[in-house]
Amino acid sequence: MKAEINSNEIESLYTEVLAGNRTALSKAITLCESNLEFDQEKSLLLLEKILPHSGESIRIGVSGIPGAGKSTLIESLGLYLCESHQLKVAVLAIDPSSLRNFGSILGDKTRMQKLSRSENAFIRPTASQSKLGGIGKNTYEAMLLCEAAKYDVILIETVGTGQSELSVHQLVDTFLMLQIVGAGDDIQGIKRGAIEWVDLILINKADNGLEDRAVTEAKNLEKIVHLIPGRHTHWSRKVLSCSALEHIGIDSIWESILSHQAFLKKNQYLQKTRDDQQRNWLYEKTAKMISDYMDSHPVLQSLYEDLKKQSVKKEINPFEHLLRVKNTLGEIFPFSKNKASY
Amino acid sequence: MKAEINSNEIESLYTEVLAGNRTALSKAITLCESNLEFDQEKSLLLLEKILPHSGESIRIGVSGIPGAGKSTLIESLGLYLCESHQLKVAVLAIDPSSLRNFGSILGDKTRMQKLSRSENAFIRPTASQSKLGGIGKNTYEAMLLCEAAKYDVILIETVGTGQSELSVHQLVDTFLMLQIVGAGDDIQGIKRGAIEWVDLILINKADNGLEDRAVTEAKNLEKIVHLIPGRHTHWSRKVLSCSALEHIGIDSIWESILSHQAFLKKNQYLQKTRDDQQRNWLYEKTAKMISDYMDSHPVLQSLYEDLKKQSVKKEINPFEHLLRVKNTLGEIFPFSKNKASY
Repeated sequence: MKAEINSNEIESLYTEVLAGNRTALSKAITLCESNLEFDQEKSLLLLEKILPHSGESIRIGVSGIPGAGKSTLIESLGLYLCESHQLKVAVLAIDPSSLRNFGSILGDKTRMQKLSRSENAFIRPTASQSKLGGIGKNTYEAMLLCEAAKYDVILIETVGTGQSELSVHQLVDTFLMLQIVGAGDDIQGIKRGAIEWVDLILINKADNGLEDRAVTEAKNLEKIVHLIPGRHTHWSRKVLSCSALEHIGIDSIWESILSHQAFLKKNQYLQKTRDDQQRNWLYEKTAKMISDYMDSHPVLQSLYEDLKKQSVKKEINPFEHLLRVKNTLGEIFPFSKNKASY
Repeated sequence: MKAEINSNEIESLYTEVLAGNRTALSKAITLCESNLEFDQEKSLLLLEKILPHSGESIRIGVSGIPGAGKSTLIESLGLYLCESHQLKVAVLAIDPSSLRNFGSILGDKTRMQKLSRSENAFIRPTASQSKLGGIGKNTYEAMLLCEAAKYDVILIETVGTGQSELSVHQLVDTFLMLQIVGAGDDIQGIKRGAIEWVDLILINKADNGLEDRAVTEAKNLEKIVHLIPGRHTHWSRKVLSCSALEHIGIDSIWESILSHQAFLKKNQYLQKTRDDQQRNWLYEKTAKMISDYMDSHPVLQSLYEDLKKQSVKKEINPFEHLLRVKNTLGEIFPFSKNKASY
């Protein structure tokens, strides 16, 4: 009793997304986020049609510790691009909590309010996929859809350091990192691993009398950064000071982003970056397809169910359970590791 | 041509770990981290013997944004416990980079140096498992081993906010979060989600004339924190000020940890927490076993290999690839979703 996919529905969603209809764009992203098998099939049909229309935007990642002012910077840069350059800007957030209003403790009622009122802007949190660590899966798909809807710039906000940062790095062309002026006299908190992925560092909150300090810190940090190898040998990572709140230094940030883009194109890095992005997505998608398929097996499902129901301490011997998993796999999916079994 | 497991080897490792031999403990943790199938089998045999000797320590998680002073606090608290209370302290870090010397940019030569010289301390980074997002899998196992080696307190360091924090929360009894005094006048950066898991908040760097400010900030934050529901209804989350660098306030932190532990025991929360910890571990372990098994299938391996080799843009149509994954799964592991196939 399998439902048939309505190809008119896909066709119409596709046409509306291409026409820049924001409601259709939202609907298409939601479809890609769905874990229902039927929706997954629909989303693949849609993405297949969308793909040839994607790839024309500038893909930018914005990272930084909580409180560094990522949302404020994204709003400030977004407004600048929408208003001064008449560009269409899409904002995607990896971590839903940062855009779904239960982000910061203190209300944050003004969060991206101005930008969200702009005709040229589209703001959307994308759900993270915890199970496979594939944080960027849906974000990649959302990005393709935004590109098909003719957004010129995609800003992807991430949270803190660690896995999510790594994933965003695999999604974007240009990776920005925000620092707060004065937060670390000793430039604590920038992990060396993170510096290697970063293309541009911003010393934010250069306002309220901290302007000069920010400039000095930016200069000092730039010297240190030059000692650490980056992902592209010939790109000199810049450190700029700015005030996202006061809209100071935003034009210089945009200039640096554009010169990084020009650098990527000139050296054929852009095509390689895009290839890697697609490959990563396809890899994650493949892994998820396999794991979803396995998890739908009734015997494996019952193994998981047992874990939920029983009191682990009293009723499950962990090692008996794991032995059962192992034996079950061999029974339901027998194969020889040395050659294909079919 | 399968190698036989040498049961004497396991037996001797087990005896040495129980005797508190640090070299054996390191070796046992390394065994659990190994992805080799043979090592995995050995580690399960070892863990099965270890399990009855585990569970007696106080399990503490330490989180906070980069630069908040997590390592300094862990060293200060660790030294205090080793020296003033003659306790044995084990430090595990979720993120290897934070302990493997390429943490902070500026050398950080003194990182936990004093603590690492103590006879009563054991410091160890544990590798994160990126594929399944199961960051805590090996850390859980390392913790059990440390407990069997009679460590009284386990301190688990995590990085920033996000997934790793969530995982650590699933590993520990008492969860600490560090804030820097003055970093956020507006208490930016504490995500509401994170506050809900936290049992104790520390306003660190209360030194160099910032002592009073830290006390005021702690009081203000405590008022706000009380408005937000925590994981245990009847636990009033405390906010304390401290200076990890100057070893100020460390005794109060320890007192608060002990009163949280007493609270957990009194309300039967501790047993539930421990049950959940074991269940989570078993769930992740099951998922990893299934995915490792699948990934070892030659046909699925070749699907992944194709992704690596070919230029995605030119030679792979992503949607043909995904269709191929789907069809391959049905061919090599046929089953009906409605009933068990065996």
